[in-house]
Amino acid sequence: MFSLLTRSDFDAAGRRISTAVHHTPLLSFRTLGGPFGTSVWLKCENLQKTGSFKVRGALNALAALNPGERARGVITVSAGNHAQAVAWAAGRVEVRSVVVMPERASPAKVAAARAYGAEVVLHGDAAAAFAEAYRRADDEGLAFLHPFDAPEVIAGHGSAGIEIASDLSGPATIVVPVGGGGLIAGIAGALSLKGILAGRAMRVFGVEPEGAAAMRRSLADGRAARLDRTDTIADGLAPPMAGELTYRYVAELVEDVVLVSDAEILAAMKLLLTRARLVAEPSGAAAVAALMYGRVPVPKGGVVVAVITGGNAEKRLIGRALREGAPWP
Amino acid sequence: MFSLLTRSDFDAAGRRISTAVHHTPLLSFRTLGGPFGTSVWLKCENLQKTGSFKVRGALNALAALNPGERARGVITVSAGNHAQAVAWAAGRVEVRSVVVMPERASPAKVAAARAYGAEVVLHGDAAAAFAEAYRRADDEGLAFLHPFDAPEVIAGHGSAGIEIASDLSGPATIVVPVGGGGLIAGIAGALSLKGILAGRAMRVFGVEPEGAAAMRRSLADGRAARLDRTDTIADGLAPPMAGELTYRYVAELVEDVVLVSDAEILAAMKLLLTRARLVAEPSGAAAVAALMYGRVPVPKGGVVVAVITGGNAEKRLIGRALREGAPWP
Repeated sequence: MFSLLTRSDFDAAGRRISTAVHHTPLLSFRTLGGPFGTSVWLKCENLQKTGSFKVRGALNALAALNPGERARGVITVSAGNHAQAVAWAAGRVEVRSVVVMPERASPAKVAAARAYGAEVVLHGDAAAAFAEAYRRADDEGLAFLHPFDAPEVIAGHGSAGIEIASDLSGPATIVVPVGGGGLIAGIAGALSLKGILAGRAMRVFGVEPEGAAAMRRSLADGRAARLDRTDTIADGLAPPMAGELTYRYVAELVEDVVLVSDAEILAAMKLLLTRARLVAEPSGAAAVAALMYGRVPVPKGGVVVAVITGGNAEKRLIGRALREGAPWP
Repeated sequence: MFSLLTRSDFDAAGRRISTAVHHTPLLSFRTLGGPFGTSVWLKCENLQKTGSFKVRGALNALAALNPGERARGVITVSAGNHAQAVAWAAGRVEVRSVVVMPERASPAKVAAARAYGAEVVLHGDAAAAFAEAYRRADDEGLAFLHPFDAPEVIAGHGSAGIEIASDLSGPATIVVPVGGGGLIAGIAGALSLKGILAGRAMRVFGVEPEGAAAMRRSLADGRAARLDRTDTIADGLAPPMAGELTYRYVAELVEDVVLVSDAEILAAMKLLLTRARLVAEPSGAAAVAALMYGRVPVPKGGVVVAVITGGNAEKRLIGRALREGAPWP
C-alpha cells in the first residue's frame, strides 16, 4: 500500500504558495548538452526566495497549520536551507519559529536564519539536533515541522515539478539532488499525475554524494536507511537518513539514484560559475555533476533538466571550486 | 534635428531576434532594495546567450544585411562581449565574421569568439583596433558592423527594454551601464514609445566607471567625446569614445549618467555572487554598484531595475571580488 498525494493536494499547495515564491527560470545550458547531443535545461532554484527550493515546502506546511498550531508556533531542524526557509515562511504567516541547527552548521546559514526572524538553537550533530527538536516540540507545545518527510512539505516542493512541466512542451528526464528526499518526492509525485503530464513521459533520476548515499542504500535495503556517518562537502544532501515517506516515493516513481564525488561537485560548481554565470552551492550542483560525468542515461536528442537546488555557497567554497574544480569537458 | 528609431524599427528587430535570444529573467533582489525602501529588480542579461546583451543588437544587424553584404561577410571590433555576440550571430545566419580585438583583450573572450566561429585578429589598443577594422573592411569588402553606434544595433538592444516594460506593471527607474551607449540608447529609445509604455513613466539613468566616463564627458561638452585614456576593471565599459548616435539618445532621453569606482564595482560583484547567486562581470555589476552607493535618486516605494549586462568574468576577477569586495550595507 502506498498513498500518493493527489492532484488536489498539489493544487492546494500551489494556491497557498504561488504568489509568495518565485516561478524560477528554466535556462538552457548548451555547454553541458553539446558533447552528449542532448538539450540541457537548468531549473534555477538557487534564484528562489532565500536561495533554495526549501521555501516551497516550508510555506505550504506553515500555511496549512490549524489556528491552534499557528498560535503556539513551530519548531524544525536543519543544517541550513530549510532553516532559512522556515524562518522566512514563518515571518510571512506571522508564526513563531524555532530552528535547531547542528553546532557545525555554516555560520552564514545560521546568521541568515536569525535575520529572517527564527530563534536558532545550536545543538550537537545532525542526529542530536533532530532529537532536541522533537524534545522541545513536546516540552513547549510547538508543532514539529519535519524538514523533508511530511506530506505538506512534499506537496509544496511538487510545485517545482509542475513549473518544469509547464515550461517544457515535450518529454524530459529530470535530475534531482537528493538529501532527505523531499524535493525528488514532490517532483516525481507531481509528475506522476496525468493532468500535469498531458501524456508526456517524464523520467526522474536522483543524485546523491558518494559520502551521503542514504537513499541509494535505502533502495538496496528495501527500506528507508539510516547512515552511521556522512562525509561530503554537500551539507544540504547530508541528513543521516532517508525519509520513510520520501523513500516510498523514490522506490515507486524514481528511475534510479546515481552517485557523484565531491571532486565532481566542485567541477560542476566551477562550470556553472564560469559558463552558466550561476552560483550553486555544492548540493545545488550535484545534478549538473551527474550529467557532466555521464551518470544519467539520456538518449541523443533528449531533453534533460538539472535542478539547481540552492545557491547559498560560502565565499571560501566558491573560491575553492574556481581553484580546484577540474576543467570540463 | 534628431531622428529617433520608430516603433516599427523596434518591432522589426523583435521579429528578427526573439526566437533566437532569451527573454531574460527579471529577478527581485530584496537585499538591495530593503535599506532604501525601494523594490529592486535585476534584468539578467548575464544569463543571455553568450553571456551578455550584445547578441540582441548583433543578431538584428546581421539579419538586416542585404544579400550582397551577407555573401561578403562582416567585420567588427570589440574588447570581448560584442566579439562573441557577432561570432554567435554570424554562425546563426551563416555569414563569415572577422573580429578585430585589442592585443590585451581577455584571453578567455578571444577564445570564446573563436569557439563561436569568428576569425579573430589581435591588433594594438582599442583605438588602433577600430582603425584596423575599418581598413580591413575597405580592403576586403566586408560590411563594417559598429559595436554600438548603429541604428540596427540600438534597435536590437531595445528589445531588452521592451521585455522590462512587459514584465513590470507600473512605472520604474531603469539603471543601465554605459560603454559606447548602445544598450542605454536602445532601452531609452524603446521606452520612449507610447505603445510600449502604456502611459507609464519610465526614467532611465546611465552608469559609467570613473575611469572611463566618455558619456558623462559628452553630456558636459554637448557633443560625443573621445577620451585619451581609460582606466577601469570594467573592460566592457571602456571604449575610448561615446557614439555620435548613442550620445544623442542619451542627451535627449536619459535623466543622468552617474559614476562608480572600481572598488564599488567589486563590492557589487560580491553582493551579486553572495546574495543574488549571480555571476556578473565588472561591467555587468555597475548598475548595482550605483544603487548600493546611492548614486541614483529613487523615491521611497519606487521600483528600480538594474540591468546586469554581462557575466563573462574571468576566474581571477570572481576571486578578487570575493576577497576585496567591501561588505554591504
